[in-house]
Amino acid sequence: MNYISVIDILASDAIHQEFTVKGWVRSFRANQFIALNDGSTIKNIQCVVDYENMDDALLNRVNTGAAIVVTGVLEESQGAGQRVEIKVKSIEIEGDADPEDVKLTILSPKRHTLEKLREQAHLRVRTNTFGAIMRMRSKLSFAVHQYFNENGFFQAHTPMITGSDAEGAGEMFQVTGLDLNNPPKKEDGSIDYSQDFFGKETNLTVSGQLEAETYALGLGKVYTFGPTFRAENSNTSRHLAEFWMIEPEVAFYDLDANMDLAEDFIKYVIKYVLDNCQDDLEFLEKRLIDEDKKKPQAERATMALREKLEFVINNNFKRVSYTEAIAILRNSKPNKKKKFKYLIDEWGADLQSEHERYLVEKHFECPVILFDYPANIKAFYMRLNEDGKTVRAMDILFPGIGEIVGGSQREERLDVLKEKMAALDIPEEELWWYLDTRKFGTCIHSGFGLGFERLVLFATGMTNIRDVIPYPRFPGHAEF
Amino acid sequence: MNYISVIDILASDAIHQEFTVKGWVRSFRANQFIALNDGSTIKNIQCVVDYENMDDALLNRVNTGAAIVVTGVLEESQGAGQRVEIKVKSIEIEGDADPEDVKLTILSPKRHTLEKLREQAHLRVRTNTFGAIMRMRSKLSFAVHQYFNENGFFQAHTPMITGSDAEGAGEMFQVTGLDLNNPPKKEDGSIDYSQDFFGKETNLTVSGQLEAETYALGLGKVYTFGPTFRAENSNTSRHLAEFWMIEPEVAFYDLDANMDLAEDFIKYVIKYVLDNCQDDLEFLEKRLIDEDKKKPQAERATMALREKLEFVINNNFKRVSYTEAIAILRNSKPNKKKKFKYLIDEWGADLQSEHERYLVEKHFECPVILFDYPANIKAFYMRLNEDGKTVRAMDILFPGIGEIVGGSQREERLDVLKEKMAALDIPEEELWWYLDTRKFGTCIHSGFGLGFERLVLFATGMTNIRDVIPYPRFPGHAEF
Repeated sequence: MNYISVIDILASDAIHQEFTVKGWVRSFRANQFIALNDGSTIKNIQCVVDYENMDDALLNRVNTGAAIVVTGVLEESQGAGQRVEIKVKSIEIEGDADPEDVKLTILSPKRHTLEKLREQAHLRVRTNTFGAIMRMRSKLSFAVHQYFNENGFFQAHTPMITGSDAEGAGEMFQVTGLDLNNPPKKEDGSIDYSQDFFGKETNLTVSGQLEAETYALGLGKVYTFGPTFRAENSNTSRHLAEFWMIEPEVAFYDLDANMDLAEDFIKYVIKYVLDNCQDDLEFLEKRLIDEDKKKPQAERATMALREKLEFVINNNFKRVSYTEAIAILRNSKPNKKKKFKYLIDEWGADLQSEHERYLVEKHFECPVILFDYPANIKAFYMRLNEDGKTVRAMDILFPGIGEIVGGSQREERLDVLKEKMAALDIPEEELWWYLDTRKFGTCIHSGFGLGFERLVLFATGMTNIRDVIPYPRFPGHAEF
Repeated sequence: MNYISVIDILASDAIHQEFTVKGWVRSFRANQFIALNDGSTIKNIQCVVDYENMDDALLNRVNTGAAIVVTGVLEESQGAGQRVEIKVKSIEIEGDADPEDVKLTILSPKRHTLEKLREQAHLRVRTNTFGAIMRMRSKLSFAVHQYFNENGFFQAHTPMITGSDAEGAGEMFQVTGLDLNNPPKKEDGSIDYSQDFFGKETNLTVSGQLEAETYALGLGKVYTFGPTFRAENSNTSRHLAEFWMIEPEVAFYDLDANMDLAEDFIKYVIKYVLDNCQDDLEFLEKRLIDEDKKKPQAERATMALREKLEFVINNNFKRVSYTEAIAILRNSKPNKKKKFKYLIDEWGADLQSEHERYLVEKHFECPVILFDYPANIKAFYMRLNEDGKTVRAMDILFPGIGEIVGGSQREERLDVLKEKMAALDIPEEELWWYLDTRKFGTCIHSGFGLGFERLVLFATGMTNIRDVIPYPRFPGHAEF
């Protein structure tokens, strides 16, 4: 390549040598200082122009947003804020950015609201905030793959399009190849799906878990990391219709090993970004501190972003049984003073996010793993405990995020599994292949699901899930 | 963990020490030798039973397919075929496998056809062949992420659900949240998509390229790696309705840099599996040699699997313009003797796979990069050359696989892009955000798409794409 990236030139010691850099103008101050960014880092390279010896017409085109090619000599910088800078010899304009047009976009150099940035999601990655978020998202994603690769896991690419709707994790989108304005019909007037692309009704997956289980029972340790879908009309800052999920599944792991895995995994990926995203984290931390200044004292964060991440990797997650949690909640101040919207009265109640937040943010003040939930509020595939009323489920709750992980030891006993499916009217024919895994060398196994965007939210300190994925899909929104 | 994986114990030097291993019985010979596999490697650990001092009822349950826990002492093996073995102290059955039931499945110890294995895709990963394929698939996948991470790329998670159908890479599946047996209708009787989940008609993506371009023009170097969909009725061994695609996109790269990237990338991931999947490759290579023995001499492979992979990483891909390729094909023996189904007559013809195969397998005998195709057989976003009739497109053709990469330098000039869209009746409103990227600091940029399954086919030597993805989706098939 005949040019160098900004991240590399900022780290270079080749003073007095000539380089070419390519990027977009972030600002051009005093007709002299170009801040050039190419996305490789949040930092800009300062390019110093000798404007008296440069063509005015050319300099007039060095506007915020323009793509330019700068050739010059690397020098130690006299100014504050950077170690090195480029003394410009020549500038070439690759793509102009008309200031009048730029003014109408989020590329214009002023503060824009996150809502405004969302409307121009195709441009927001060029801002400091979204550049930082998306670089961190990518680094987190890589850390996920690296963790599992280092620990003997194989990635299982489970299908997006599924003919089964038995998993029951949520409402599904339908996938079809039919012409919906003129679909083939059966005699009773209903749609004849035997003529659809797959010869039956198909949906987008809500979880790759059941397929991942079949792979764990052959390869031992597997994980999925792919898109997942929910056709739920949830217009909240915590839900997306399309999101990325990580689902490890391990043969011979019981629930304790599963909790160990989840905790170790989360700490690894958080440590990875602390080690590999220092500049972006510094920027996002400062951003949060600025945001906090606008809030009343009581609502401000008690820890800075990196301090919060360090806290997670340096402290054990608190493991608490559902039964213990209910006792704590029942005796809590907000319960006694009837401040909870849903008062905790008796064992068996499903926990709401207000309860989870109380446990994590007020009572324990650290990540919490709740386990051994009542069977009747959890999915059919979770392993029934000897007490006959709880299952080996676990949820990991994070401050500010709520549930970040949901997992369980799976019911490996064919007879118990069949009973539970019968009780929930799940037809055995639908899951014959899943039941097969319990017939041929079934074994203890466990896994969990982690919503990747919630991890990105936590690591970046952002609060709206629509801001941590490039093009968010939610009710009424499938732009770009 | 209180047990050790098979891959680790096979590498262990802790002779005379006690270990516990957990896995599935592959075979139990002479009431004495258990071959135990846990998926961590294709190799089994041999567990030697002192059957005279073991409970007969227990040993009767050590059947092929059963999940067992073996505790014993690691010893150097006297037998051929393994360095170490476990002298068994105790066996615990986790999950039985009734031999009568197993007999009806592909787990039974005899040769099964690939077709039969496909019907039991939930069990096939427990066979040597599919264990090897899926471990290699996972390693290739990791190599993809590692290559891009090491080279300053960021992963962009582009959406699966799209409201645009302008990319034109193929037929799309529709995604809907409507009740299709009772959809809301407009006055003219057509379906009222304003009442659908996203407020409009939506489809599954055929490519993340356009979105990836928007990200490359902010972050510089990005890639996507995710599922992609085609609603095409292609019942071939080379097509899937759902497959995984890798799409890098780089700002400031021209077509030459793009070709360099593609070649370097492919060589890296192939080298990665040569270095990291030796046992699986050895097995798959032997499998191919056995398969070849059934074929007539002329149809046999000229190179063994690993030799073929070494050849790719040690030789330059041959770069040939479309115009040169046409000249070669026009003068070729099969063209003159009218052996091609589609005879090459004049410049402008679209190349069929018979032509691609001739160039790669007969003429050049190495991977080939074809570039500068006629504009009218390529997509609208490819950069028009100065000749006004060719575009800066490139395809990489591989022996036995055909097209493995399709890419181009993108049309960065707003006026030229608009003209091409108009000529193809692509409405500007549909792609306003894509056009925006050409308004604000547009620049030279390039990218390509690589069908991941074709890469897995090449690396494993398999020939049917349905055998290199866990649960293949194709017309009439969305099982599991």
